[in-house]
Amino acid sequence: MNLKLVCKVVGRVLLIEACTLILPLLVALIYRESPLPYLLSMAVTAGVGFLLSRVKTTSRFYTREGFCTVGLIWLATGVVGALPFWFSGGFPSFVDCIFESVSGFTTTGATILTDIEAQPYGILFWRAFTHWLGGMGVLVLATALLPSMGIRSHYLTQAETPGPVFSKLVPKQSQTSKILYAMYCGLTLIEVALLKLAGMPLYDSFIHAFSTAGTGGFSNRNASVGAYGDPVIDIIISVFMLLFSVNFALYFLMMHKRFKEALSSDELRFFLLVVAGATALITINILPIYESIAQSLRYALFQVSSIISTTGFATADYMLWPTLSQAIVILIMVCGACAGSTGGGMKCSRVMLLLRAGRRELHKVTNPRRVEVIKLEGKTVEESTLHSTLVFVGCYFAIVLGATLVVSLDNYSFATSFTSALTCVSNVGPGLDLVGPSGNFAPLSDLSKIVLSLCMITGRLEILPILVLFSRTAWRKG
Amino acid sequence: MNLKLVCKVVGRVLLIEACTLILPLLVALIYRESPLPYLLSMAVTAGVGFLLSRVKTTSRFYTREGFCTVGLIWLATGVVGALPFWFSGGFPSFVDCIFESVSGFTTTGATILTDIEAQPYGILFWRAFTHWLGGMGVLVLATALLPSMGIRSHYLTQAETPGPVFSKLVPKQSQTSKILYAMYCGLTLIEVALLKLAGMPLYDSFIHAFSTAGTGGFSNRNASVGAYGDPVIDIIISVFMLLFSVNFALYFLMMHKRFKEALSSDELRFFLLVVAGATALITINILPIYESIAQSLRYALFQVSSIISTTGFATADYMLWPTLSQAIVILIMVCGACAGSTGGGMKCSRVMLLLRAGRRELHKVTNPRRVEVIKLEGKTVEESTLHSTLVFVGCYFAIVLGATLVVSLDNYSFATSFTSALTCVSNVGPGLDLVGPSGNFAPLSDLSKIVLSLCMITGRLEILPILVLFSRTAWRKG
Repeated sequence: MNLKLVCKVVGRVLLIEACTLILPLLVALIYRESPLPYLLSMAVTAGVGFLLSRVKTTSRFYTREGFCTVGLIWLATGVVGALPFWFSGGFPSFVDCIFESVSGFTTTGATILTDIEAQPYGILFWRAFTHWLGGMGVLVLATALLPSMGIRSHYLTQAETPGPVFSKLVPKQSQTSKILYAMYCGLTLIEVALLKLAGMPLYDSFIHAFSTAGTGGFSNRNASVGAYGDPVIDIIISVFMLLFSVNFALYFLMMHKRFKEALSSDELRFFLLVVAGATALITINILPIYESIAQSLRYALFQVSSIISTTGFATADYMLWPTLSQAIVILIMVCGACAGSTGGGMKCSRVMLLLRAGRRELHKVTNPRRVEVIKLEGKTVEESTLHSTLVFVGCYFAIVLGATLVVSLDNYSFATSFTSALTCVSNVGPGLDLVGPSGNFAPLSDLSKIVLSLCMITGRLEILPILVLFSRTAWRKG
Repeated sequence: MNLKLVCKVVGRVLLIEACTLILPLLVALIYRESPLPYLLSMAVTAGVGFLLSRVKTTSRFYTREGFCTVGLIWLATGVVGALPFWFSGGFPSFVDCIFESVSGFTTTGATILTDIEAQPYGILFWRAFTHWLGGMGVLVLATALLPSMGIRSHYLTQAETPGPVFSKLVPKQSQTSKILYAMYCGLTLIEVALLKLAGMPLYDSFIHAFSTAGTGGFSNRNASVGAYGDPVIDIIISVFMLLFSVNFALYFLMMHKRFKEALSSDELRFFLLVVAGATALITINILPIYESIAQSLRYALFQVSSIISTTGFATADYMLWPTLSQAIVILIMVCGACAGSTGGGMKCSRVMLLLRAGRRELHKVTNPRRVEVIKLEGKTVEESTLHSTLVFVGCYFAIVLGATLVVSLDNYSFATSFTSALTCVSNVGPGLDLVGPSGNFAPLSDLSKIVLSLCMITGRLEILPILVLFSRTAWRKG
């Protein structure tokens, strides 16, 4: 493998990341907090980045290098993002900082903080900003800003967003990245404006818009979005969580007035159907707890949007809801958002492929000679794509079960162990029991936190890059 | 579909099932209990069977008919098996009787009885005997006894034991069935003898040998095998649970002195590796609870054998063990026994295929042009087999999650809902929390019991026959 070039690319991305620290630095200065944590982090990040980017090398760069680069960049980003937390002195240990940073960049939103409101403004801003940076992909950002890295950048973006229906919007990758980021910024700013209009302080509006855009879930309030107790804010955030769970390519189509094409998307319909179904079921199920149908609908919609978009905001503690609602929450956690969005989980299109493959097996029994192709978005799905999807689903569950084993070493309930693994691989945030909406990950051991951090990155990169990074074949010569 | 012939076959199988009731009838007579429940059940079963078997029809019978027949036979068997329980008057409701009967025939071993020892000898005998009958397959029994049903019986056995490596031992199906049953009877009788020698009463020996042979788990003691508190009995049953989890084709090979071939089986090695690994981990994990390493090894081995073979006997309550041990129990519950055995679960060979398919995806990244075939037992696995396996794994989890939703309506803990679905689809028996080794399924609602019964049959028939039975395409004309 061309390790030198891999390091060079990692170095360049670190340089960009050093620049992103300017924003929390400004916030800290505005609120008259110490700028030291950010300056120190910038110095370290930029220093390492500069050294790595100076490496001299050839330009041999293929799929294998792409996967490894992406894996390494996300691991490095996790460490770099932890620096401001560590230098601020408000976090118990460096492992906790890493967990929080990885949880931020992977847009998981699982936290080890027990008192969020005690943290300085700059730190909470950085925390939410990592969601925003990670949501669209660190690499997408890099390709948008660095058009000429001397390598074909599709090897990178392919590894970072490998969803089954990833498609380039325009022929040139750096161009696609720019369009994606423009839409992303636009939607974020609209949400900031709406939240401000609804009466949320401007600072809080930015925090929550960043978290929603990245489908992360970090809030600057201990009670998450529930702290505002405002139905209008709930609804704005619910709608935006759903908007950010949709394939961004559809917005591109809409911008070019191809509405019919965009709205006839299989995946979009499936996604909305799941949201509607889950919301209806939960609304009925929690009706006895709340005063009116309107109120239980409000809480149900918010929670369903929050979980299926893999954001993880909370306005109510679903651990107090009936078990059916909890089971639905777990189920849509597995399903996740649409491919090509900032959301996590297995992705709707994969679930659809799985269901259609199952139906085909059924037809095969009753009609063994018929050759049936599986279609998605009107196009025939190649058998190799289908195959990879099925393997993905298998690996997904295998990783969840493996991580459950490690977390269970801490001897909390099985539901805690299982759902903390599931919520981290799916990049959601909250789970059940100890890691429920009103709990947090602080009591877990360092081992669990490190394994769950790896799970978050593995889930965010949809498994393969991290597996490749830790496989023998990738490091073999040639 | 040729519904008439399907009914005819179901009728014939019911006639055989009526005959199997002779054994519990004899037991009841020996213990001077009322023979009425068995006589009434025999009359009803034989009557319905006789009427159905009289239907006049053509002999058009293909895969679709095979799947539907198998599905219907298992549904009918569940009802027929419930009759003695119902007529005995010792069961709370008919749904409970159905649950117990289905749990018996599918060799799950989940019970709704709270005081097992209060039941008559005949009923407890029938309960364990259903395990024995269901273990090898009701249809395998039928093809062994009814060689000329006017149909090619491989359409039936294909649907009942569709594992990925099912192979006929000898060219003729009825011949294969006879050989299988001979080995099955032989092993069962050896276990009865050994248990008797170890000091277990003869009646109890039969009950536990039947349960072990079918990898079911019904005991005639409230404390299951733990009631004897005898290390020798524990070890005998541990070993036999493992013996019955192995592909029976291997015993056939050994009978023909092809030891090397038998012992080099990939699946056998994988299975033994998982058993050894899980036992070692649990032994270390529960060491602080027990007095010595020998004792914790004894309990660990028994529980691992009991769960991976999907039997479900208990000598200790693993709900009192650390969470890691509980998580391992859940993990090996998913894995299950070897294909071609009486055990349930996903089956080791499927897990192996999944792992190998995952590894191939990994290699594809680093070496996209290499064509790699997946091998199992030295033979190349066809892509279509691999594909079906992957779809199976997906459907397996989808069914578990769906059933979890229904059970969660009863509002017990999430762990209860999830593991009761998992344990039923995997045909294991105990789960966690309410349905743990010292609990039972009695408190669940009728709806949950019916859905879990369907799950047990779906798991036992490895999904497809039940899906076909409930699909529209199967009932379409032509």
